[in-house]
Amino acid sequence: MSHNLAIRGGLLATATETFRADIGIRDGRIVTIAEAVTDAEDVIDATDRIVMPGGIEAHCHIAQESGMGVMTSDDYQSGSISAAFGGNSCFVPFAAQKTGQSLAETMQTYDGRAVPKSVLDWSYHLILTDPTPDVLAELPEVFAKGVTSFKVFMTYATRVSDAQFLDILSVAGRHGALTMVHAENHDMLDWMARRMVEGGNVAPRYHAPSRPGLAEEEAINRAISLARLAQAPLFIVHVSTQVGAELVANARAKGGQVWAETCPQYLFLTREDLDKPDMEGAKFICSPPLRDTSTQAALWQHVQAGSLSLVSSDHAPYRYDETGKFNAGHDISFRQIANGMPGIEMRLPLLFSEGVTKGRISLNQFVALSSTNAAQIYGMLPRKGSLSIGADADIAIWDPNETWFADEMHDAMDYNPFAGIKVTGRPVTVLGRGRRIVDKGELIAEPGSGQFVKRAPVDSTGHPGQPVPELDPTQNFGAILP
Amino acid sequence: MSHNLAIRGGLLATATETFRADIGIRDGRIVTIAEAVTDAEDVIDATDRIVMPGGIEAHCHIAQESGMGVMTSDDYQSGSISAAFGGNSCFVPFAAQKTGQSLAETMQTYDGRAVPKSVLDWSYHLILTDPTPDVLAELPEVFAKGVTSFKVFMTYATRVSDAQFLDILSVAGRHGALTMVHAENHDMLDWMARRMVEGGNVAPRYHAPSRPGLAEEEAINRAISLARLAQAPLFIVHVSTQVGAELVANARAKGGQVWAETCPQYLFLTREDLDKPDMEGAKFICSPPLRDTSTQAALWQHVQAGSLSLVSSDHAPYRYDETGKFNAGHDISFRQIANGMPGIEMRLPLLFSEGVTKGRISLNQFVALSSTNAAQIYGMLPRKGSLSIGADADIAIWDPNETWFADEMHDAMDYNPFAGIKVTGRPVTVLGRGRRIVDKGELIAEPGSGQFVKRAPVDSTGHPGQPVPELDPTQNFGAILP
Amino acid sequence: MSHNLAIRGGLLATATETFRADIGIRDGRIVTIAEAVTDAEDVIDATDRIVMPGGIEAHCHIAQESGMGVMTSDDYQSGSISAAFGGNSCFVPFAAQKTGQSLAETMQTYDGRAVPKSVLDWSYHLILTDPTPDVLAELPEVFAKGVTSFKVFMTYATRVSDAQFLDILSVAGRHGALTMVHAENHDMLDWMARRMVEGGNVAPRYHAPSRPGLAEEEAINRAISLARLAQAPLFIVHVSTQVGAELVANARAKGGQVWAETCPQYLFLTREDLDKPDMEGAKFICSPPLRDTSTQAALWQHVQAGSLSLVSSDHAPYRYDETGKFNAGHDISFRQIANGMPGIEMRLPLLFSEGVTKGRISLNQFVALSSTNAAQIYGMLPRKGSLSIGADADIAIWDPNETWFADEMHDAMDYNPFAGIKVTGRPVTVLGRGRRIVDKGELIAEPGSGQFVKRAPVDSTGHPGQPVPELDPTQNFGAILP
Amino acid sequence: MSHNLAIRGGLLATATETFRADIGIRDGRIVTIAEAVTDAEDVIDATDRIVMPGGIEAHCHIAQESGMGVMTSDDYQSGSISAAFGGNSCFVPFAAQKTGQSLAETMQTYDGRAVPKSVLDWSYHLILTDPTPDVLAELPEVFAKGVTSFKVFMTYATRVSDAQFLDILSVAGRHGALTMVHAENHDMLDWMARRMVEGGNVAPRYHAPSRPGLAEEEAINRAISLARLAQAPLFIVHVSTQVGAELVANARAKGGQVWAETCPQYLFLTREDLDKPDMEGAKFICSPPLRDTSTQAALWQHVQAGSLSLVSSDHAPYRYDETGKFNAGHDISFRQIANGMPGIEMRLPLLFSEGVTKGRISLNQFVALSSTNAAQIYGMLPRKGSLSIGADADIAIWDPNETWFADEMHDAMDYNPFAGIKVTGRPVTVLGRGRRIVDKGELIAEPGSGQFVKRAPVDSTGHPGQPVPELDPTQNFGAILP
Repeated sequence: MSHNLAIRGGLLATATETFRADIGIRDGRIVTIAEAVTDAEDVIDATDRIVMPGGIEAHCHIAQESGMGVMTSDDYQSGSISAAFGGNSCFVPFAAQKTGQSLAETMQTYDGRAVPKSVLDWSYHLILTDPTPDVLAELPEVFAKGVTSFKVFMTYATRVSDAQFLDILSVAGRHGALTMVHAENHDMLDWMARRMVEGGNVAPRYHAPSRPGLAEEEAINRAISLARLAQAPLFIVHVSTQVGAELVANARAKGGQVWAETCPQYLFLTREDLDKPDMEGAKFICSPPLRDTSTQAALWQHVQAGSLSLVSSDHAPYRYDETGKFNAGHDISFRQIANGMPGIEMRLPLLFSEGVTKGRISLNQFVALSSTNAAQIYGMLPRKGSLSIGADADIAIWDPNETWFADEMHDAMDYNPFAGIKVTGRPVTVLGRGRRIVDKGELIAEPGSGQFVKRAPVDSTGHPGQPVPELDPTQNFGAILP
Repeated sequence: MSHNLAIRGGLLATATETFRADIGIRDGRIVTIAEAVTDAEDVIDATDRIVMPGGIEAHCHIAQESGMGVMTSDDYQSGSISAAFGGNSCFVPFAAQKTGQSLAETMQTYDGRAVPKSVLDWSYHLILTDPTPDVLAELPEVFAKGVTSFKVFMTYATRVSDAQFLDILSVAGRHGALTMVHAENHDMLDWMARRMVEGGNVAPRYHAPSRPGLAEEEAINRAISLARLAQAPLFIVHVSTQVGAELVANARAKGGQVWAETCPQYLFLTREDLDKPDMEGAKFICSPPLRDTSTQAALWQHVQAGSLSLVSSDHAPYRYDETGKFNAGHDISFRQIANGMPGIEMRLPLLFSEGVTKGRISLNQFVALSSTNAAQIYGMLPRKGSLSIGADADIAIWDPNETWFADEMHDAMDYNPFAGIKVTGRPVTVLGRGRRIVDKGELIAEPGSGQFVKRAPVDSTGHPGQPVPELDPTQNFGAILP
Repeated sequence: MSHNLAIRGGLLATATETFRADIGIRDGRIVTIAEAVTDAEDVIDATDRIVMPGGIEAHCHIAQESGMGVMTSDDYQSGSISAAFGGNSCFVPFAAQKTGQSLAETMQTYDGRAVPKSVLDWSYHLILTDPTPDVLAELPEVFAKGVTSFKVFMTYATRVSDAQFLDILSVAGRHGALTMVHAENHDMLDWMARRMVEGGNVAPRYHAPSRPGLAEEEAINRAISLARLAQAPLFIVHVSTQVGAELVANARAKGGQVWAETCPQYLFLTREDLDKPDMEGAKFICSPPLRDTSTQAALWQHVQAGSLSLVSSDHAPYRYDETGKFNAGHDISFRQIANGMPGIEMRLPLLFSEGVTKGRISLNQFVALSSTNAAQIYGMLPRKGSLSIGADADIAIWDPNETWFADEMHDAMDYNPFAGIKVTGRPVTVLGRGRRIVDKGELIAEPGSGQFVKRAPVDSTGHPGQPVPELDPTQNFGAILP
Repeated sequence: MSHNLAIRGGLLATATETFRADIGIRDGRIVTIAEAVTDAEDVIDATDRIVMPGGIEAHCHIAQESGMGVMTSDDYQSGSISAAFGGNSCFVPFAAQKTGQSLAETMQTYDGRAVPKSVLDWSYHLILTDPTPDVLAELPEVFAKGVTSFKVFMTYATRVSDAQFLDILSVAGRHGALTMVHAENHDMLDWMARRMVEGGNVAPRYHAPSRPGLAEEEAINRAISLARLAQAPLFIVHVSTQVGAELVANARAKGGQVWAETCPQYLFLTREDLDKPDMEGAKFICSPPLRDTSTQAALWQHVQAGSLSLVSSDHAPYRYDETGKFNAGHDISFRQIANGMPGIEMRLPLLFSEGVTKGRISLNQFVALSSTNAAQIYGMLPRKGSLSIGADADIAIWDPNETWFADEMHDAMDYNPFAGIKVTGRPVTVLGRGRRIVDKGELIAEPGSGQFVKRAPVDSTGHPGQPVPELDPTQNFGAILP
């Protein structure tokens, strides 16, 4: 058996183990892992490198209009390229339904944006904003196409009521789909923001108190309660508070099928950043807002303990100009500034540098948090997020020693909120299905070379992993093997 | 590259993934995992079988005298053979220091018991009963030999005081060793037992109320507090209460380096079993005692959520006769009946059947709970507990469909507390370092063919995994690779 | 100084102390408490009796239309008479705003119902169902009239949104008024009830699962969060779940101005009662629904510990006929049966008999739970709920030894949900402002002899009690004394 | 009926109500409370004054040797006088058993110290340091004498084991006595202190880290667990941590008979005070040690919410010289400095000024925290701590407006840890059984005029209050009235 490509001499890291081995790839898939793979047409020398599953960016906004109608600066070309330079070989942006739009139309729109441009394999989380009965009836078809997760909002104009949320959870639960939720109490936010603005407190720094942690905590508690009632799995995006993380941990310890993520901005930035002179604070407006250092410490503990399963970027690239942050003008309150910040290329280097290098998490936890857990929760394991036989050869090769300073990225943005941070460790080569996407600082892949990934339902046992069928002892077990 | 042995056609299950692949073994180690391994001297056909890391039994009493001086019925021969028939390819019994004994003597004594007899690879957890300054000074040497975990008791005559516990934790913390603890408040137990006996309540059924859950909960809270003060990692053995599991979960979510296990008896039996007629209840006397069904449900939730990392047997084989349970006679109170029950051969089949087959846990969680997590926590990963390149070929091959009824085991016992339970799924072949130990119901390995396993310290970051060194960017990273 | 009336020889019980003394009353107020009051025109012999503040029934529906438009069977005559026979000398029914109605109109309507008929002094809690800006602007005037508490619903057609709730809390907080809330998540209830009915499960017994405890727990958490944000005091009515009570206790221990009550039906009845044959279960339909015995035990603990401040009746008298329960007909689902049950005359005897006589609470806790705490929380202390000088002579005289069986009451109902319970202890004489209302089983007072009670704002320190002004050391302190 | 003394024109404050009334006293007891008491031999004009139950100091060390053998500077004369100037009319110092001493001897010793000298009525809490079977057998006799509370230590040389603690709790529980506990884990403290000293960290400031909050939290959890097992009531003295207070609150909400107190030093001082230049920090060495401002805030919340029932002084007067703090010399480590600080005269003024005047607690909560709750918990209600008929005329009359600065006190100390604090409100006159003890800055009472107070058992229902007998309906209820 010969191979198209071998990765030789590297230190392999999975979500569980670290060991030396060569990898043999054929037809885009990993077919051999062995002490030595010698029969390959092409070889990558990974001596002194760490070889791991490519990152999976599971929370990013690409070629998507904001609630305010502002288009992200990144399309599937710049977005996927920036992600690849950040160590990712797969990503899952959102496909956002517009009011009145069918889900088929929504998917078609986003296919039109992704197919010709993406250098990474991708899937979508569907954003459900108009859950009419017709739309709910359309959901199973979407799931069947392999889009098995979708997101609802508890705030913004696109928010769902608790009643709609229950209906959605119920449909999702029956079809093995995963409901993701942006959990902040809308009325609390609106009430606080109105008070801020009425008091003349319109500068970016007032964004933080206008979205108190209490609003997130309440909404997380409510979302978990609704999911318990509907007996459906739930994923809480961008948890930014200690109490929020504790609610997730407690729900899990009580048997709840609840998972959650946090984001680099909540681990590395604080609300102090919103207080930069002039309107510089606008660069740090995202939702939920930045918090404080004691919250950072608490979130790290939950990342370490595993109550937070992912660290995702929530990449929401709005430029610091009239096309983005100031789409509504310059003489505006914090409420009118586009919400979001970039980070798709910084997520993994920051987590590696501050997490692994500084001893906060193990190398294996890094792999789990950045890739394998996403694959597991979102129904792509073991095809993605894994160094196992038969898996797509989605592989990131890192130099753990390179030291650099965060500056310009490969996205379409005009600022980097993490600029100036000293980083240790960098992805050198990223493969997608065995082909080099980026290599030693160069983009290799062609736009459009990425493919849509059909995803499996959430594990019917509620324990994420690939589907573990109920074994029927009267049946031949072989029949249910993959 | 040719192989001594190939396992072909199986479904591989690790702690993370399930996939089809062949395994190639050479010199007792896994050297190839690939779509097809064709160049092997010997082949095992694993069609319709699940192939996974062999179980690691991390809590068992073998060739060990009880606190009351009763020798277990199982020595390293019968104990390791029974474990192997139960799907294990490695185990870690206790080496119990006697009062006044040096640790070197203790280790020598147990080597004398294990080396000539064990069919499995093994290590020891050292039981520290007499932590004099001399003995504490001896500990680092024991760690250097690869015995990097040890156990203390908060009850029994062998208990340590909180002061001793702190000294022990402190030494352990500095040397990367893991302190295990049997957490029950001795004075509570003694006070309750005296009241029971004084009241004439001496039947086996009074064993349960004499060791109230409160005593475990208090001791777990205290042990975690002491470990926090000493900044040392801690492992709580045989958690048997809901509150106990919650204390572990909360400590972890607060950044504590705390792990814990439960045992099959707490998941599958209840205190009702102590109430069997005549003295039959004596068969179910173990410590902590059996609880109730609502506790079972809570413990399952913590197993599912991962707050309990292992399911171990606490195999403590005392026969239902004068050599065991009734060593002190027949006309005795529950306090004099030898404590403990067998289970080393039932642990994995019960967990597979009730866990995986019934959909409570995924197949991957089964691997983690029965093998990989133990390897990780106890410093044997990736050599043990892993299907990775370079790992010992410690492999269990299961028929997931075989249905059978628990009855006689291969241990030296005269009863099975789980007798009569219908089980689905059974280990067919177990390999240790590539050699067949048991195969299709037959014992193949010779006594004495097992080897001592030198274990690594606990991860210095406190996040279990193989040692992830602090990366020094001024150094060549390659130097610190394994 | 002579007295109009003396109560002689009794054992006095307050919220704090129990002691022997005579009480001297003049012009309807307590003017003397002394070892002996000898100079009185009229004397009540209280030998072998307990003399305490008359009960204050702080949660009852009198002469009020339900959300379904069904008028309660009790008007202010029968309602106040039944309350008086139950040991109360004051009550606070609801005045319910109708959609579109001004608050002045609402108050006028209820004055028309109460003034000519009540034998007890009374106040209203205003029910706010249509909180338009005009209505909110009217609130301070209502507070100024002495109606300093009002209730909102989180369910029913009359529910408020979180935004409205915040606006209401904010106005209340600024004016020292107390917001009461019926906390159940409407969408959860509606979703469950629809599923029940769609499944053909329409019998009264399905009322309980259609309103799961989870819906109360979520809403209590949300209500407390909203009150924290608005920095306003909050009162949770009829807590019926263990988690709900724990949320209240935790909020208080974190500095929250949160109080709550439970009701006899949650302490003495269970959902089993809903399962009576034919439609008898309809008698036990109330909201929140009856729970189970383990909830009863937990609620008792919170009553004992003081996390629940009151035990109120939630008397909602709908007869077991077409004027009440079956107003919508007989061939109906549980959703159409009028919600509520009577209890205004049973509340104190049940609490005395099961609480004091059976040793669950002290006699002083009984006084606090049934009278003094209500006076304190609702701004009537020390005029009501107190045996102090200057207080209204609202006094209940109990025979603690009389044993009787609950049967017909003095209300306008045709059933008693507590019928058949054996009760020890009974109010013999009830005074209101010094006049006998009931005496030895006879009604003495005339309809219309009760008076409206003007209530004070909630203590500005957030600690209920009579207003404790911020002491300004530059001022003469005497100026701020009452 | 004429009176020996009347207090006229004052504002009366009880644990529940505030109202205007005159008080009439005869033979040392309150016999009349009325709008006007005109027939008295002697009159105190209380216009513009607040009249309340005299304070009860329930935690103070008077004429007692420390564990290190240092006698307190205050004997029953200076101690009771200082307490009286601080607004107290009763106190309960400790009577400390010496090893080998019978309890009868202990009581006799302390009677010898108290009887000739005290200006206040007093009782003792017995300190049990040597709980031999003989001593335990003596306990019921002590209870019968009216000493119904006693204290054990979980640290110091005088500490009890968990086994002894259980035996003690069990005896106490059977006889209605209350066990008080100093809850810190001895081994933790010793381990930390040894590390400090071995590291050369001997200055007073190292006292704080040598007694970490964790040691208190662990011990409180253990003490509550032991009391639950023994089914006995428990009182936790001087709670100094947030988690400690939460454990108490949670135990109460779960039905536990647990009460606790904090002290002014934990509300008003911090560990920064230990860092004063030279050895000044020694003045602030007490145990548990001073904490930080966030702990202060949390303790205030628990005081407000009622989870902490008392604020006691823990007056432990060791002078800042060789007779006290430096009894072991000047060249010593913090471990050898006598533990404790004075505060018996500051407790009530600080609590009034910072609590009532600043709006943190109501005037009624002040009365409860400083007097009535102590009377209730320690079996003196309604004789002490109450303005009720028949009660001892133990009354404090306060000027709420006087502003002053804390400086020298009337104790035998040479420093005041609260010196310099501006205080609003001051006790002007203190009565004990109707006689003036202090009046307008002058000492009136003679040494030896105080009397021993015989106290009742803890309420058998576990709900503190005066004994509420189980009402037997077959008996004449009058028989059980007091």
